[in-house]
Amino acid sequence: MTSFAPLQNDTFLRALMRQPTAHTPVWLMRQAGRYLSEYRATRAKAGSFMDLATNPDYATEVTLQPLERFPLDAAILFSDILTVPDAMGLGLHFVEGEGPRFARPLRDEKDVLSLRVPELDSLDYVFKAVTQIRTELKGRVPLIGFSGSPWTLACYMVEGQGSREFHTIKKMLYARPDLMHRILDINATAVAQYLNAQIEAGAQAVMIFDSWGGALADGAFQQFSLAYMQQVVARLQRNHDGAAVPVVVFTKGGGQWIEQIAGIGADAVGLDWTVNLARARELVGAKVGLQGNLDPAILFAGEAQIRAEVRKVLNDFGAPSDGSGHVFNLGHGISQFTSPDSVAAMVDEVHNYSRQQRSPIVNNFERN
Amino acid sequence: MTSFAPLQNDTFLRALMRQPTAHTPVWLMRQAGRYLSEYRATRAKAGSFMDLATNPDYATEVTLQPLERFPLDAAILFSDILTVPDAMGLGLHFVEGEGPRFARPLRDEKDVLSLRVPELDSLDYVFKAVTQIRTELKGRVPLIGFSGSPWTLACYMVEGQGSREFHTIKKMLYARPDLMHRILDINATAVAQYLNAQIEAGAQAVMIFDSWGGALADGAFQQFSLAYMQQVVARLQRNHDGAAVPVVVFTKGGGQWIEQIAGIGADAVGLDWTVNLARARELVGAKVGLQGNLDPAILFAGEAQIRAEVRKVLNDFGAPSDGSGHVFNLGHGISQFTSPDSVAAMVDEVHNYSRQQRSPIVNNFERN
Repeated sequence: MTSFAPLQNDTFLRALMRQPTAHTPVWLMRQAGRYLSEYRATRAKAGSFMDLATNPDYATEVTLQPLERFPLDAAILFSDILTVPDAMGLGLHFVEGEGPRFARPLRDEKDVLSLRVPELDSLDYVFKAVTQIRTELKGRVPLIGFSGSPWTLACYMVEGQGSREFHTIKKMLYARPDLMHRILDINATAVAQYLNAQIEAGAQAVMIFDSWGGALADGAFQQFSLAYMQQVVARLQRNHDGAAVPVVVFTKGGGQWIEQIAGIGADAVGLDWTVNLARARELVGAKVGLQGNLDPAILFAGEAQIRAEVRKVLNDFGAPSDGSGHVFNLGHGISQFTSPDSVAAMVDEVHNYSRQQRSPIVNNFERN
Repeated sequence: MTSFAPLQNDTFLRALMRQPTAHTPVWLMRQAGRYLSEYRATRAKAGSFMDLATNPDYATEVTLQPLERFPLDAAILFSDILTVPDAMGLGLHFVEGEGPRFARPLRDEKDVLSLRVPELDSLDYVFKAVTQIRTELKGRVPLIGFSGSPWTLACYMVEGQGSREFHTIKKMLYARPDLMHRILDINATAVAQYLNAQIEAGAQAVMIFDSWGGALADGAFQQFSLAYMQQVVARLQRNHDGAAVPVVVFTKGGGQWIEQIAGIGADAVGLDWTVNLARARELVGAKVGLQGNLDPAILFAGEAQIRAEVRKVLNDFGAPSDGSGHVFNLGHGISQFTSPDSVAAMVDEVHNYSRQQRSPIVNNFERN
């Protein structure tokens, strides 16, 4: 077993578990990505996106890049949410400018019946990257592992690619729920094993991305996405190497189901920008931490506006005297068209303003 | 002033206004459309989509087509939500398979400052179609007029086309809210005038489609979409020719804001399939009627499954002894890949089951 350097900044982990922190921690979904010129340089060196993602050296390099630029409070493994179905033999590849595709999507009963939980060996490149990143982080900040949710993986596995309407998988869901449940059952087992292996390899928190849960009808969401995330969460090891390993679940477009999502046993719930944080906090109470939820498009505005919107999110969540448990993030992945200067301003404002919230300067002159 | 035949089926209008009805009325968003072979035939005859939409004879023909097939409780004007910005001179056209485009989108201050509320004359083809459809309906069912919401029109006007992330308009919204408000102010005036002219021409109810309100952050939605829909609703004539003209507002992805949407003065609120109808009804109480919300993808399943899901929606809303005010619809426009037989089964089940809900057969043997 690898021995890692002690953690110097545990703000992120503490906030997920609703413990007091000196400032609100911040990281960004897709923080290692195309908006950074150094990422684009590594990507050019590596070749395709999959060449980059499957090479632990490159994955480590790009994971650490945003931490050199910004005082972020967490690192997140550079990988793709679709590594698991790729390991199932579906043939993941990326069409430039169009996103992920599977060469062999699941289209009929025969396809579904031959689907198996993959051998973890085939995902070894991921676990190697986790260990290497954790080592090279030298304890600066915690490392987040992640996976797509069983439903979100299934969306790509059945549609064969991203979709706007999800006609193919919804047709299966409504016409052949037995096949749908079979896929989701296999995915839930695979995702739980995959995340546990990431934890064994060094991930200090894990996040489940339910990117397409919000496409489901009320009722179907609970049955075909939430129930399987609950299965995954129940099977995760929540303590490793003497430390708690918090779990975050994030259903994009799931704002209406916050209370139900908060009830599946995760430590924290990710929120997109459509959710009012004050209301969310009121609904979930002390049950879970909350992560989010600045609209990534705000980073296209000027610095003063960005700082004002950051303060609005922090004020919506409320001063920490009301409790703790907020991790600042965007409500979705950062756009490739974002200026890194805007990210710097955002991170700076989160840290500064959240410290002010914790130690308000009482100015009696101004109060009068 | 044209004199129209008396209305024979007012179920739809009554339900919008929360009056008792003998069955739950039903219509479908995009009910005149590509899933019908007779629509495709008219379209082929007409030429482009705009050739079809701007010709009152063709618009009348396709509006009436679904009523010949199914016993629907309302007709909706065949038109496009983007006629208003087209009349503003932005140059609407349709790229086959890709949806609407504007030749001259609003990209800078100069573009925005030269924007004007269009002369209603330029939309005369719409009002002519309304009058002709209402005449040819001969009072069978009411005719719905409609428009895009000020925000949804602005999305297309600024982006120049549909979008997944709305970066261009969101950049304007956050960086130049003054320009954004100017566009929305003009749109609100134009939409109100446009809908009032449809009412004058014969529309018996009107609906505002806020297709992209759900892309906005909480806070921004209220400021940049809801406030302008409220302005439109406030300016509409709610009575015409001796009859009440109910107003429906529909924000796709607006499930979290139902209570606020219900508070802007409309008679009814449209809901997409992510919303739980029982919960929605609990939240809005007696304030408004509700319209929706079957997932259009359910129409890809078999007949038994379709009928079961229709009953689920009707049961979620609740038996009419609990009150009234439900118009059955899909949660979004019907897919072009839907079988008309599935629509027939859906409409049949709505009518039959909702009648059963109103006159339950009390079977004492089964109860014991």
